[in-house]
Amino acid sequence: MSVLPTDSLATPRFCGVPTFMRLPQATSLEGLDAAIIGLPSDSGAPFRTGARFAPNAVRAMSIMLRPINPYRGGINVFERLRVADAGDAAVVPGYLEETLAQIETAVRALAQAGLTPFGIGGDHSVTLAELRAVAATHGPLALIQFDSHSDTWDSYFAGKKYSAGTPFRRGVEEGIIDPSHSIQIGMRGSLFAPDDVSQSLDLGYEVVTTDAMFEMGLPALAQHIAARTAGRPAFLTFDLDFVDPAAAPGVQTPESGGPNARETLALLRALKDINLVGADVVELSPGFDQPAQITALLAATVMAELIALRADR
Amino acid sequence: MSVLPTDSLATPRFCGVPTFMRLPQATSLEGLDAAIIGLPSDSGAPFRTGARFAPNAVRAMSIMLRPINPYRGGINVFERLRVADAGDAAVVPGYLEETLAQIETAVRALAQAGLTPFGIGGDHSVTLAELRAVAATHGPLALIQFDSHSDTWDSYFAGKKYSAGTPFRRGVEEGIIDPSHSIQIGMRGSLFAPDDVSQSLDLGYEVVTTDAMFEMGLPALAQHIAARTAGRPAFLTFDLDFVDPAAAPGVQTPESGGPNARETLALLRALKDINLVGADVVELSPGFDQPAQITALLAATVMAELIALRADR
Amino acid sequence: MSVLPTDSLATPRFCGVPTFMRLPQATSLEGLDAAIIGLPSDSGAPFRTGARFAPNAVRAMSIMLRPINPYRGGINVFERLRVADAGDAAVVPGYLEETLAQIETAVRALAQAGLTPFGIGGDHSVTLAELRAVAATHGPLALIQFDSHSDTWDSYFAGKKYSAGTPFRRGVEEGIIDPSHSIQIGMRGSLFAPDDVSQSLDLGYEVVTTDAMFEMGLPALAQHIAARTAGRPAFLTFDLDFVDPAAAPGVQTPESGGPNARETLALLRALKDINLVGADVVELSPGFDQPAQITALLAATVMAELIALRADR
Amino acid sequence: MSVLPTDSLATPRFCGVPTFMRLPQATSLEGLDAAIIGLPSDSGAPFRTGARFAPNAVRAMSIMLRPINPYRGGINVFERLRVADAGDAAVVPGYLEETLAQIETAVRALAQAGLTPFGIGGDHSVTLAELRAVAATHGPLALIQFDSHSDTWDSYFAGKKYSAGTPFRRGVEEGIIDPSHSIQIGMRGSLFAPDDVSQSLDLGYEVVTTDAMFEMGLPALAQHIAARTAGRPAFLTFDLDFVDPAAAPGVQTPESGGPNARETLALLRALKDINLVGADVVELSPGFDQPAQITALLAATVMAELIALRADR
Amino acid sequence: MSVLPTDSLATPRFCGVPTFMRLPQATSLEGLDAAIIGLPSDSGAPFRTGARFAPNAVRAMSIMLRPINPYRGGINVFERLRVADAGDAAVVPGYLEETLAQIETAVRALAQAGLTPFGIGGDHSVTLAELRAVAATHGPLALIQFDSHSDTWDSYFAGKKYSAGTPFRRGVEEGIIDPSHSIQIGMRGSLFAPDDVSQSLDLGYEVVTTDAMFEMGLPALAQHIAARTAGRPAFLTFDLDFVDPAAAPGVQTPESGGPNARETLALLRALKDINLVGADVVELSPGFDQPAQITALLAATVMAELIALRADR
Amino acid sequence: MSVLPTDSLATPRFCGVPTFMRLPQATSLEGLDAAIIGLPSDSGAPFRTGARFAPNAVRAMSIMLRPINPYRGGINVFERLRVADAGDAAVVPGYLEETLAQIETAVRALAQAGLTPFGIGGDHSVTLAELRAVAATHGPLALIQFDSHSDTWDSYFAGKKYSAGTPFRRGVEEGIIDPSHSIQIGMRGSLFAPDDVSQSLDLGYEVVTTDAMFEMGLPALAQHIAARTAGRPAFLTFDLDFVDPAAAPGVQTPESGGPNARETLALLRALKDINLVGADVVELSPGFDQPAQITALLAATVMAELIALRADR
Repeated sequence: MSVLPTDSLATPRFCGVPTFMRLPQATSLEGLDAAIIGLPSDSGAPFRTGARFAPNAVRAMSIMLRPINPYRGGINVFERLRVADAGDAAVVPGYLEETLAQIETAVRALAQAGLTPFGIGGDHSVTLAELRAVAATHGPLALIQFDSHSDTWDSYFAGKKYSAGTPFRRGVEEGIIDPSHSIQIGMRGSLFAPDDVSQSLDLGYEVVTTDAMFEMGLPALAQHIAARTAGRPAFLTFDLDFVDPAAAPGVQTPESGGPNARETLALLRALKDINLVGADVVELSPGFDQPAQITALLAATVMAELIALRADR
Repeated sequence: MSVLPTDSLATPRFCGVPTFMRLPQATSLEGLDAAIIGLPSDSGAPFRTGARFAPNAVRAMSIMLRPINPYRGGINVFERLRVADAGDAAVVPGYLEETLAQIETAVRALAQAGLTPFGIGGDHSVTLAELRAVAATHGPLALIQFDSHSDTWDSYFAGKKYSAGTPFRRGVEEGIIDPSHSIQIGMRGSLFAPDDVSQSLDLGYEVVTTDAMFEMGLPALAQHIAARTAGRPAFLTFDLDFVDPAAAPGVQTPESGGPNARETLALLRALKDINLVGADVVELSPGFDQPAQITALLAATVMAELIALRADR
Repeated sequence: MSVLPTDSLATPRFCGVPTFMRLPQATSLEGLDAAIIGLPSDSGAPFRTGARFAPNAVRAMSIMLRPINPYRGGINVFERLRVADAGDAAVVPGYLEETLAQIETAVRALAQAGLTPFGIGGDHSVTLAELRAVAATHGPLALIQFDSHSDTWDSYFAGKKYSAGTPFRRGVEEGIIDPSHSIQIGMRGSLFAPDDVSQSLDLGYEVVTTDAMFEMGLPALAQHIAARTAGRPAFLTFDLDFVDPAAAPGVQTPESGGPNARETLALLRALKDINLVGADVVELSPGFDQPAQITALLAATVMAELIALRADR
Repeated sequence: MSVLPTDSLATPRFCGVPTFMRLPQATSLEGLDAAIIGLPSDSGAPFRTGARFAPNAVRAMSIMLRPINPYRGGINVFERLRVADAGDAAVVPGYLEETLAQIETAVRALAQAGLTPFGIGGDHSVTLAELRAVAATHGPLALIQFDSHSDTWDSYFAGKKYSAGTPFRRGVEEGIIDPSHSIQIGMRGSLFAPDDVSQSLDLGYEVVTTDAMFEMGLPALAQHIAARTAGRPAFLTFDLDFVDPAAAPGVQTPESGGPNARETLALLRALKDINLVGADVVELSPGFDQPAQITALLAATVMAELIALRADR
Repeated sequence: MSVLPTDSLATPRFCGVPTFMRLPQATSLEGLDAAIIGLPSDSGAPFRTGARFAPNAVRAMSIMLRPINPYRGGINVFERLRVADAGDAAVVPGYLEETLAQIETAVRALAQAGLTPFGIGGDHSVTLAELRAVAATHGPLALIQFDSHSDTWDSYFAGKKYSAGTPFRRGVEEGIIDPSHSIQIGMRGSLFAPDDVSQSLDLGYEVVTTDAMFEMGLPALAQHIAARTAGRPAFLTFDLDFVDPAAAPGVQTPESGGPNARETLALLRALKDINLVGADVVELSPGFDQPAQITALLAATVMAELIALRADR
Repeated sequence: MSVLPTDSLATPRFCGVPTFMRLPQATSLEGLDAAIIGLPSDSGAPFRTGARFAPNAVRAMSIMLRPINPYRGGINVFERLRVADAGDAAVVPGYLEETLAQIETAVRALAQAGLTPFGIGGDHSVTLAELRAVAATHGPLALIQFDSHSDTWDSYFAGKKYSAGTPFRRGVEEGIIDPSHSIQIGMRGSLFAPDDVSQSLDLGYEVVTTDAMFEMGLPALAQHIAARTAGRPAFLTFDLDFVDPAAAPGVQTPESGGPNARETLALLRALKDINLVGADVVELSPGFDQPAQITALLAATVMAELIALRADR
């Protein structure tokens, strides 16, 4: 099995069933370093649904991407790292907790086989399942969360503990996130309650708001993230609403006033020395990304940068 | 409180927060004969989500409708029947069974107060909750189901008993539907399994496929529906995928080859002598109905005809 | 100046600034039999605006059409009738009455020069201006109105006498429509007031509802229209909401349950022996016709059939 | 009557008919400090119509917003300021001057009762009506105008004095704007005539172009605005085309090259010590904001910041 | 390798990379009876491009379809016929003739291995390549063409012989179509030149216009098609513009006034006793099919019926 | 013939068939200094087609622009430079090389008559044809290329030498570009092959990546461009994918992470002392620019700045 993507100078990108970046489909996990896995659930979404269609929407735009990353020395990422597209986890629409269990099972299989999972959400509730799966192999994880919302509320409608708004409180409670090495980046906008400001801090997270991020400067922030997570296996979760709605309109809960795509990619490209053991890109809602699908393209580009970060490990 | 809609010759339709047909909002149930109630859940949807936004999408297009129904003698429907918009039931995204319980509670309040509930879905799973609520007051119900799918499968993903594909098996099992007075109209298209053909018949339903419907003729079918349900309180559920996707593109699970809007409305306008104690219009997915929102307009028009059918009781 | 359209077998349709059917632009009126004129006003619209963009939207799709009409003996319409695109009348947004005056002036210039004007609306209020202009040359007109609404209300918001809902009462009052030779075809749907049913009849119009139209049969109706208007110069106004929203989604005030495109075109192609002195196609709202623009294509096709009807005079 | 918004952690945002930020609907003005009022007119628009649908489009996205504003000390805005949604003013489509009169009447009722009106346009012509209404209570107003165009032309088509392009010349002529304490911010792009550059200056306004704004720096500009308007009751009008089309695509007359959403919100959040007696957000054209509705979300976010500015007064 | 589609009652349809009807991907041709093959070229399109994205757009909606066909005795089509998805042929954008050569090569491999190819276009020029490939194995073919245009022009722009408008003249000239057993169904609309009417007849085709089709009646037409093609291996080509734009908006060259989806499917389901050796569905232009993708759904449904026709052979 | 655009204060912009900026259509070339020419080809596009519709899409939004350019001293551009809209070159869909020949012929006629051609693409392959035409009059050209991709690959699919990805290698090989005075600005994103980095440098171009552009600063870069091209007739080609997809979603091959519209326009407005003999704006794909058409507006604004740059020569 070739482990290189199909060459888009030889056959047009639009030919064939699209896998992520035209990578081969995984027929077994043997010999692989990493795998793409779709997590097509929107059962945890409090606002716009549709993230169940996100994995294939990201794949469809990822065919635009090419294998050489000039921001990390011009390496061919897929010569360094053997990556395949492992398809999607199964889900149970309308049954969030069963869905999380199924996602955990699918991701656990990858992690146990020594692969780094790269998840394509799905709403942000799926990250809890991934964290459970990856922590089972690697122990408590340093979380690097790019997001405009902290997602550390205690419960949502009818007191339910699971939703896209609660995973990073649950993860601390379950001992699978080590908040003392974790950092949340990009918070902004209006809040539900006065103690929203402090709830992440109270859990032990470091919080860098969008305003603070620009005050600190992106290169300094990149270094700071490495320092914060040093010595820990890290999981990076990228909620697309981190980015301003102008550049990422197709998300579940857009929040006006974020960084643009250039700033976002510059930050990710400046990251170094992260012991990345898992990552995801979540919250794409393809129905709100029509017709140009620029959010899906950005999601694919972010994912490609995260794979390059891992290849650079 | 006025019980008549705002007059769209006096103030433009687009002025003000839209209620169904510009009816007054219900501040109490007293003195009302019927109420509109939104059921904004898509937790039961196996394919396209978004029906949580359907109640307000239907309201937004219902402002096109006027109170006089020329197909039932030119009556002013709202002089006959005092109707208000009762807002939406609460729901619990990602928790289908809790959602059904909350919907049942909300609809039960209407039925117990003697009102006829007119529900705006929501995916088709919500109808089970409505049937439970209405049957609690009226006893086992004659079901009149317009739909391209029978929705009588036993279970869906992971063996779950509740979804948009199962309510009309559950309703029979729970004794709230009397299948011997019930009828399913409009089935068509490909099937999952050989016994799909017989599963509704085995439960006791009469089934009229789309092809059979046109062979029988619409006026004869209308008479037949009245005969089938005679002597029973009836609940009419209208799944918008009954209609061809050309006229109803914005649905959860479109099925090519259905009747058009004119045929659909002709059939509904020909219905008479139904002891209607509840009704709903379900499965609108507004994100797939842009920009012209013709499915929402049709949904509103169908609902107005069902209210007129009730006013004509 | 050539009077034939550009040949779309020789240069692709999408080349060049689009005129109606790729006809030449009128540089003078001399030698012309008829002219296309855009009437880009939506100041009379009670619901969806945007008809100001309709003339160019119709032109953009009209490039699909070819000059030979096989439904009238395979004639090359533009060898029979010298037609040019005369551009658009000027309008005054926000000032409906001044807008009507400017439209009247522009159309009057065509009619006085002996041309048959073919207007592309604009909301339906523009037809009053056209009728005034054409009647100035031809005297009281037989009106042939395809429409789902009668547009014969007395006044709209704040008692204003001019709007898309009133022109065919005003036209009778002003003596420019002869209602005894006029006919309204396609009325359907809910009504504002009990006397809506009778208001057109009281003015002297014949009214054929959508239901009546199908009962009568389309060929019989075509003959009946000719008989009704016999002996009078006729103006044919085609409101696109005559057609079902499935086939004409991009209109100001869609009304569910109309004829489809095939039925509509069959009726128009069956018309004969009409002394057509003017016509228009109105109420396209292009923003609601995206992305396929099927309403604009239908509008252009209807207009081409009306020109062929005139060529066949 | 509760004066707090519905809690979106308790019931999902998409439940119920949407008012601005899920605030209560005003049943009387008593006890209120401020009110939201929709101004659904596009009769003054020289280009894209559709702003008549803007008030409800802004409401629909405003449900994303939460009551705590972390940019002004974490205050719960609605504990400081009692605000309700007062519905929409009536309008007369096609009759701009009558429309302005009806809007003035509606806003005057709020101002006279001591409330600060927060208007949701509507094209920019509606601001003249608001200024008339508010000045009747407060006297000549300091205008703070965010806009890419000055809107100080003398007349538009056919010499008409009223349109979205003229209100801020009319306001000075009528003595309801005090230009010596007023400021226009954000002008850019091509111009109609050489004296366009000077026309606002000649009227007495201070003008800060987009380029000048960034040269000055946003914090300095915020201070400057306060100084310019000091000692005067101020009306702030926010035309969404101030923002770059990437972040605000859904406007009447987009102008390339403006600030992004982050810069825009930073400027508004830096404003202090303004004696705000009225404000509006105008020129949203929802049909051009599909499907993600990011302009409506930004409009709602801007409005929430303006209410917070007033609460901070 | 399983030859049955993934069961959509067990795992949700939206899970996994979509193949046609969730069929297995072909890893070899051995043991297969038929194969789906995408033909992603729009280099022959004279109007709307985008058909290069059609194969994956059809796959994406085909996941709605289920394996049991109730219109042919309730057979499980894929128990009768072993079918796999063979991916896409390669193409050379901007070089139509090289593209046709590459398509021919890909389809020839299927036909030579004894498989029936089911092609998903692509614009209609691709059918010439398929005919060449299939005729190489089966000899001159009976063509069954559903289309609103005859596509028998001699040449297009600059005298070029290949385009979506010429394949069925070329096929006769090349001796790969036997016109005396061939039939074109659905022609309608305006024409380029007077001899357009006769050009297909002159080549030897039978032509059934849309009007003639309804006069004859659909069951009679189905029988007639079988009689016309009797004794010959048949290739069925389905141009989606055969259908009215209301039901098939997303096509290259829409033509108002065609049959609806129900009539179309009824005709295909009535076909029997055709010796089908190849088929295609062409001319989908997905960018014009948003957001509901009803044309892609119809395309997939038509293809499923054609596979069932072959299974019923 | 007037050489000034129609005044949009006198007649609304939306009236009349749209030419670029409402300029007169060229009836002859005499007396003109420059001409707009549409180049409606997408036969060279390796990804999204649709650029054939770009010239008219740019015209449709260009009506927003006004003749006075305040960034170059408030000049009325069209009093300095007599410009007309020369319509579109003919093209041969599916035959890229013949298309390039037809475009070259059309542009050569302008250049030979002493006009500066301003081309509206079309995909980027059209620039090669323009360069051939302009170099025939002016000799080897200094190329100023704004683009996120270098477009200097040797060949694309099946070894073909012509495509949107190859023109700037071909131009050097043909001797019509002088690379030693040429500059490529804006490259970014992932690459096909390790030597992608060096291929433009090897050809002799100067390359300024997006990152380098911001490090250098926009005013310095503008000066540097003038210095690099000094002494040579210059052709400026603007590929809209230079801009970030947030501001230019409607392009053939979007690339995340570019400059925004304000930065882009600032750079163009800072350009001076360029001996501009031709220019184009390419790669708009209007189907992906709906509904707000902000890419088309930006394309028109860029073109207006390029005309102003020429007027300032």
